[in-house]
Amino acid sequence: MKWLLTFLLTWAIGCHGFSQNPELMVRNAMNLQENAWNKGDIEGFMQWYWKSDSLMFIGSKGVTYGWDKTLANYKKGYPDKATMGTLHFELVHITVLSPEAVYVVGKWELAREKPVGGHFTLMWKKIGGKWVIVSDHTS
Amino acid sequence: MKWLLTFLLTWAIGCHGFSQNPELMVRNAMNLQENAWNKGDIEGFMQWYWKSDSLMFIGSKGVTYGWDKTLANYKKGYPDKATMGTLHFELVHITVLSPEAVYVVGKWELAREKPVGGHFTLMWKKIGGKWVIVSDHTS
Repeated sequence: MKWLLTFLLTWAIGCHGFSQNPELMVRNAMNLQENAWNKGDIEGFMQWYWKSDSLMFIGSKGVTYGWDKTLANYKKGYPDKATMGTLHFELVHITVLSPEAVYVVGKWELAREKPVGGHFTLMWKKIGGKWVIVSDHTS
Repeated sequence: MKWLLTFLLTWAIGCHGFSQNPELMVRNAMNLQENAWNKGDIEGFMQWYWKSDSLMFIGSKGVTYGWDKTLANYKKGYPDKATMGTLHFELVHITVLSPEAVYVVGKWELAREKPVGGHFTLMWKKIGGKWVIVSDHTS
């Protein structure tokens, strides 16, 4: 069933009708992120981050700039399926700021032997026709 | 000199020419926030937060909703001038998302006997003609 859901979500995101709704686009993208993470696919998860040196990730160690460095940090922090656990997002509040910008406040949880979690605020932007996270503040 | 700076900034914010520039509006507002904090004036600092039950403050304890509760938390966390210390903001990145929305990534520091600091991401919106913080994620 999961492959069907992934296929349908991917299809929906490509569909013109859906692409008019920024909130739905971001909700679907975050579902796909969960699916990728829960398959152990960090690169798939990272496809929804802006592939730019200007991407910002604000975490416990301050600001990390750039897609490559952010990917490297994820791989270092989550070296295998056991540490990755099962990701669940809870979207607390979504604000559509413009047809090209969406702000998301939410919670994240990793179900695993030692569960972890916290809150995030994300700035999503539509860049080159694709919705991507340009800034992720996770605490 | 400080009163003159505060006066000039307040005047500038009221000035039509300046009001066309969202980034400058937010920079000036954050200068005024620093000034208020450093006079021990938490209410003055809080004037730049949205006076609404929908204001969101995301901190170490999760999401706090509402202006009143956010003010109460600040007063509890910073009961006197000594704990308030001297606030300094460093604005790392400012993104104007629309004429009514500005996203800010920055650092904060409190110079005091036991200094503290961290990062913040702020969503500023122009509501009812005034620029206010609608969401503050501080870590």
